[in-house]
Amino acid sequence: MSFRHKHILGTRELSREDIELILETAESFKEINQRDIKKVPTLRGKTIINAFFENSTRTRLSFEIAGKRLSADTVNISSSGSSVSKGETLEDTAKNIEAMAPDIIVMRHGNSGAPHYLAERVDCSIVNAGDGTHEHPSQSLLDLMTIKEFKGQLDGLKVAIIGDIAHSRVARSNLFAMTRLGMEVRMAGPGTMIPVGFENHGAIVCDNIEEAITGADVVMMLRIQLERQANTLLPTLREYARFYGLNPEKLKLAKDDAIVMHPGPMNRGVEISSAVADGARNVILDQVANGVAVRMALLYLVSGADMVEE
Amino acid sequence: MSFRHKHILGTRELSREDIELILETAESFKEINQRDIKKVPTLRGKTIINAFFENSTRTRLSFEIAGKRLSADTVNISSSGSSVSKGETLEDTAKNIEAMAPDIIVMRHGNSGAPHYLAERVDCSIVNAGDGTHEHPSQSLLDLMTIKEFKGQLDGLKVAIIGDIAHSRVARSNLFAMTRLGMEVRMAGPGTMIPVGFENHGAIVCDNIEEAITGADVVMMLRIQLERQANTLLPTLREYARFYGLNPEKLKLAKDDAIVMHPGPMNRGVEISSAVADGARNVILDQVANGVAVRMALLYLVSGADMVEE
Amino acid sequence: MSFRHKHILGTRELSREDIELILETAESFKEINQRDIKKVPTLRGKTIINAFFENSTRTRLSFEIAGKRLSADTVNISSSGSSVSKGETLEDTAKNIEAMAPDIIVMRHGNSGAPHYLAERVDCSIVNAGDGTHEHPSQSLLDLMTIKEFKGQLDGLKVAIIGDIAHSRVARSNLFAMTRLGMEVRMAGPGTMIPVGFENHGAIVCDNIEEAITGADVVMMLRIQLERQANTLLPTLREYARFYGLNPEKLKLAKDDAIVMHPGPMNRGVEISSAVADGARNVILDQVANGVAVRMALLYLVSGADMVEE
Repeated sequence: MSFRHKHILGTRELSREDIELILETAESFKEINQRDIKKVPTLRGKTIINAFFENSTRTRLSFEIAGKRLSADTVNISSSGSSVSKGETLEDTAKNIEAMAPDIIVMRHGNSGAPHYLAERVDCSIVNAGDGTHEHPSQSLLDLMTIKEFKGQLDGLKVAIIGDIAHSRVARSNLFAMTRLGMEVRMAGPGTMIPVGFENHGAIVCDNIEEAITGADVVMMLRIQLERQANTLLPTLREYARFYGLNPEKLKLAKDDAIVMHPGPMNRGVEISSAVADGARNVILDQVANGVAVRMALLYLVSGADMVEE
Repeated sequence: MSFRHKHILGTRELSREDIELILETAESFKEINQRDIKKVPTLRGKTIINAFFENSTRTRLSFEIAGKRLSADTVNISSSGSSVSKGETLEDTAKNIEAMAPDIIVMRHGNSGAPHYLAERVDCSIVNAGDGTHEHPSQSLLDLMTIKEFKGQLDGLKVAIIGDIAHSRVARSNLFAMTRLGMEVRMAGPGTMIPVGFENHGAIVCDNIEEAITGADVVMMLRIQLERQANTLLPTLREYARFYGLNPEKLKLAKDDAIVMHPGPMNRGVEISSAVADGARNVILDQVANGVAVRMALLYLVSGADMVEE
Repeated sequence: MSFRHKHILGTRELSREDIELILETAESFKEINQRDIKKVPTLRGKTIINAFFENSTRTRLSFEIAGKRLSADTVNISSSGSSVSKGETLEDTAKNIEAMAPDIIVMRHGNSGAPHYLAERVDCSIVNAGDGTHEHPSQSLLDLMTIKEFKGQLDGLKVAIIGDIAHSRVARSNLFAMTRLGMEVRMAGPGTMIPVGFENHGAIVCDNIEEAITGADVVMMLRIQLERQANTLLPTLREYARFYGLNPEKLKLAKDDAIVMHPGPMNRGVEISSAVADGARNVILDQVANGVAVRMALLYLVSGADMVEE
């Protein structure tokens, strides 16, 4: 089966079959990252532009390493010093980048929908590396890959997503993907951080973290963005930690073999206690490792390299 | 014929034969950018340092992609965090960079003449990627390549360059190159933006944009640098747009098959109306695409790779 | 003999045999930097992350070029925009980076001891590119390589290190390495810049620069960090230059064939006069050139590539 998408804009556009193909491809690429020679010639002669109009060290790093291990030429643009601040429209910026004939633009942007808008206007592939509070598909796919590794399957699992649901593209992308795969998604967070209408997308919105966690196979903690949210959406961090932070006591409510996830970077002592962060059920570093494999799979699949081989 | 220049400092130093060789070489490289595998081993094992002491996302991107597609190792320096701010002289900085044995330093610098100064003091090749208000030779060469593609020849063409002539290295580099190639160069802009003495270099300085455009084969609009010039050199942007901005009405004065150029990024509604920017005669994205090919040609020619093969 | 260290944290941990092996390896790599094709496949398929949590254009450039000439995939992180500022612990940041399966992390950090702390917590190799006021081993090794080139041997040589000894990781790394190799290390600087207890590590602390320089084979001038120290540790720059700056007159006190070194970037007229900086005995650019070779050697040796071949 070959991949039918030219772009990866969000999990919302991905079918169950799409997701399964991505995860299988990622599993086969994961082995490359464990070799002594971590490089295959798959995308040799392809140009990938990592256009990060919003800062993100680790997602950029993960995509850049993924591209290089596939032998692509990778080039970075970061927001500081970019032409965006020079009064040019986003579409003109994108068309200019496209004119240099990249095969793939990996793009992070502060505006929700920016990659979708551009995907209709450029000829190369666009991979969304996070747009505003909208989607972050590669993060969701690496989460799914990690869950599948630890749980053996995805269908029927109960996942609790805890924190600032409203502003989280991670929560949104996971909600779309997980419900499509037959997983139960429960969400909890302070009232100011729960969006209206997520029930319509299949989420079970819980009144408190305890209700969400009880019996869960997976507990996914979201990051509190200290720099932005601390003063507006929360009474105090101490209260947040008390009511919504994950500690060993709360974790006891989940299944005995439940795993703990976090998209990073963690605020220890805020949304996650150090005891949990350093605990045996934490799979955060597996998520990061799988991130490189998933991104290799995405770059490979959108490039159409899988079709060439058939 | 092999290339006789070690450096590319400005179009002023280039003869008609030099320019023709560069354009022919660029045409042969352009095809590589359209391939599925956009990479040739021409500069394998060469080190290119892109030293941008002044920010420029798109020129750096174009040079970096050009170098990578030729299989060179490319390394970037940007002004922020560079040693220049640490009290070192420019010559010491350059000699330090040179000591790491790069083959080519691609250099942008805020001071006019900086690349020329260094070219006399280092052993490697220097390619000027824009120095102050002086020269921007690769931009001029990509302009010429684009004009030749659309017009078939260069000799005898009438070009109108409109805007802030005085502060434009694009205007200056094009004036030198175009007059050498037998093209007629007309210039127009607000009085505060027209330098004294350009007539001596062969420019026809016009009183207004209409006079410059009338009968032109090429209309080249320069960028108004909103961040710098808006408050000092112009009464208001609205007036600038009215008197010096290109709109469909003014464009009618040019030849029927005239093309519209802009070095980017465009200020829509200021120096160019959206109707023109999105019009069929606009070749701005061709300019960007040709930019990669021209820069591949420059890197190839100064590296002496053309001589090795003969 | 194969290299027995997984990490390069400081010269303090290196034996005489270690240093000799590194210098011999660097000498063999130096020749590659002088070839037309400056590239060998030694580290193909290896991933090197240059994590510079403190800015340094030239050290990063040197390590990046070293990695690329060995055919490794190199990826950069700089402090601006890094996750460190997002409240994550250094250990979590490092574990996240490590999860992407780099072979080597080259690391500069403002905190003394940061690389040592991480070396105990990650599986990949760590090369210290400068930590706080502690160590800068690759700088010391390139200094040693340069001295050996000019003097033929190291044992028994007299070295004067002049300037802000207390805050200099270069001075510290050289003190450890040079005393181990049987060199005599004399130090001089203003009273506020001489640390207590360096005599215990074998240094001869002199009362003034003249005493330190007299009869020296090597005069190593340290950089005054104008941005940090000028107002707190020094009365005036003019007085510093007068009492501690190296000029031709003071240099006469050293041996006739003494060489002058500086880690760069130089403050001409402060710690070194232009007459000396441009003089025939200055080997500063040799230091920079050897820096690439030494870093190639370090990356090669910690990667275990030397053991594979035996």
